[in-house]
Amino acid sequence: MKYFAGIDLGGTTIKGGIVDRENRIIYSKSIDTVVERGFEAVAEDIAKLVEELLIINNLEMDDIEYVGVGSPGAVDTKSGKIYFSGNLGWENVELGGYLKSRLKKEVYVGNDGACAALGEFLCLEDKNVDSMAMITIGTGVGFGFIFNGHMYDGATYGGGEFGHTTLVFGGEQCTCGQKGCIEAYASFTALIRDATRFASDNPKSCIAQIVSQNGKINGKDIFEAAKKGCPDAQMLTERFIEYIGAGIVNIINMLDPQVIVIGGGISRSSDYFLPKVIKYASENVFCRQAKLSEIRVAARGNEAGIIGAARLGDYIK
Amino acid sequence: MKYFAGIDLGGTTIKGGIVDRENRIIYSKSIDTVVERGFEAVAEDIAKLVEELLIINNLEMDDIEYVGVGSPGAVDTKSGKIYFSGNLGWENVELGGYLKSRLKKEVYVGNDGACAALGEFLCLEDKNVDSMAMITIGTGVGFGFIFNGHMYDGATYGGGEFGHTTLVFGGEQCTCGQKGCIEAYASFTALIRDATRFASDNPKSCIAQIVSQNGKINGKDIFEAAKKGCPDAQMLTERFIEYIGAGIVNIINMLDPQVIVIGGGISRSSDYFLPKVIKYASENVFCRQAKLSEIRVAARGNEAGIIGAARLGDYIK
Repeated sequence: MKYFAGIDLGGTTIKGGIVDRENRIIYSKSIDTVVERGFEAVAEDIAKLVEELLIINNLEMDDIEYVGVGSPGAVDTKSGKIYFSGNLGWENVELGGYLKSRLKKEVYVGNDGACAALGEFLCLEDKNVDSMAMITIGTGVGFGFIFNGHMYDGATYGGGEFGHTTLVFGGEQCTCGQKGCIEAYASFTALIRDATRFASDNPKSCIAQIVSQNGKINGKDIFEAAKKGCPDAQMLTERFIEYIGAGIVNIINMLDPQVIVIGGGISRSSDYFLPKVIKYASENVFCRQAKLSEIRVAARGNEAGIIGAARLGDYIK
Repeated sequence: MKYFAGIDLGGTTIKGGIVDRENRIIYSKSIDTVVERGFEAVAEDIAKLVEELLIINNLEMDDIEYVGVGSPGAVDTKSGKIYFSGNLGWENVELGGYLKSRLKKEVYVGNDGACAALGEFLCLEDKNVDSMAMITIGTGVGFGFIFNGHMYDGATYGGGEFGHTTLVFGGEQCTCGQKGCIEAYASFTALIRDATRFASDNPKSCIAQIVSQNGKINGKDIFEAAKKGCPDAQMLTERFIEYIGAGIVNIINMLDPQVIVIGGGISRSSDYFLPKVIKYASENVFCRQAKLSEIRVAARGNEAGIIGAARLGDYIK
């Protein structure tokens, strides 16, 4: 059994891949999630995608060690049950159980941010690293923490929800129902909300011009406008980077991992934001006398989620 | 060697004790810190206190395994160096090194919040607990995290500084130089600041009456006024409890330990605040479908810091 099947389940697409023992993806394929169809239809599509990945690669079920799935939300990695996922609209669904009985194979399910962190961790060149945190800045703020070479998810699988720790007590509404979560400040959804609000309040601003030209604005537009010299976009991105920096400072003050990896769409603008984030962190961590965690951008892009899911069974408790 | 010497170093007093293998304090003694005298005088007093504890108890240096010290601030547990302590006004001092050469004995130094957590952990009746966080609400907000039965302090000893994670981005000034730290909201110093400010803004309030009667106000006054029905004190304590609750929610969302222990002066008002904190946490954690960490008050009071320091050498990495 030389291979592993990894599934990166998202609100929009389901990415699947066959991964070898050297953590290389030998084949991958994406399908649409169409989450409105409900749990069983999505779970069945995951099962079919695994079967298809095997057929395309001329593999039998016996050629893979196990199937791993990274899913949004709070996941009981022991039972494969998803307690809650706002993105998927699921509560208390037995994804692991469904796939196990459907595929007659060992199945592991973990949080998607934790799987992405594991994928990046497995691809680190420095094999002496045994503690690594990853934040993924996208529609939300994903998180994963590797400690002592294992995935950290807490006593009852409620841990690792860094995106829903409070950065601004009583602040902006978060999708999780709480107020002031880091996700409500350091995600692209939050940046777009702030830019749209700013454009509406300042109709003559360069941000308002982009909104009126395109009908809306996205994170890429804002970062590009900042690079081109739009002062409003610069103000918005600077503040956005401060929120990300403050989140990273919280991670360091709490966990102090050797390495912090930043992933998601923002990693494509790393030349612009990474030096600023490192500067913010070095100036604002509590213990400036100790060595700062190494802060870098993700190396594996979208592949990390598949790789981490594929190897999940070897890195959970 | 049946015994251990434990020192709980604080900004006001130095508490020392002889602890046995069953984690019982067989004798303890406190002296004043008088921190203004500087590092060497304080370090020398710690050495003398250890010698005195031995003499009083008719013990030789060979009767103790090692000396452990819990100190405020960021401590390199490997070398015994204190990187930084705002409370003591120290930066890069070799406390472990000084005591080792002075006492000719193995010496371990750790963060005081982490030592208190270890002391409480060692006294837990349920020996199946292997992850426990402790917050100490006092002048500041102390913290310690036990994971897999060991003290967690991060890759470069910069971790475990929960008190200096941001709760209110850009908020109240903290003693550490940053703004909006949990310590600037959930400590007694913060509660007293808020009460004094409230009294000044509302000279006819029941809080203002206490301030004018006593010349000042302390945390105990505010809690007692709240219990007696003063609506302003109730508002202040309710908000204070919300800050503590939000901090605990952050700990659960991030770490999800089996047990969370609340220590410090506030634990004497546990009948009043504990049910409120548990209610807040259960309503506000991200994953309400998983089992909530057990939240309880500290069982060992001031003893925990001495016990944890005394056993430090067996629980660090």
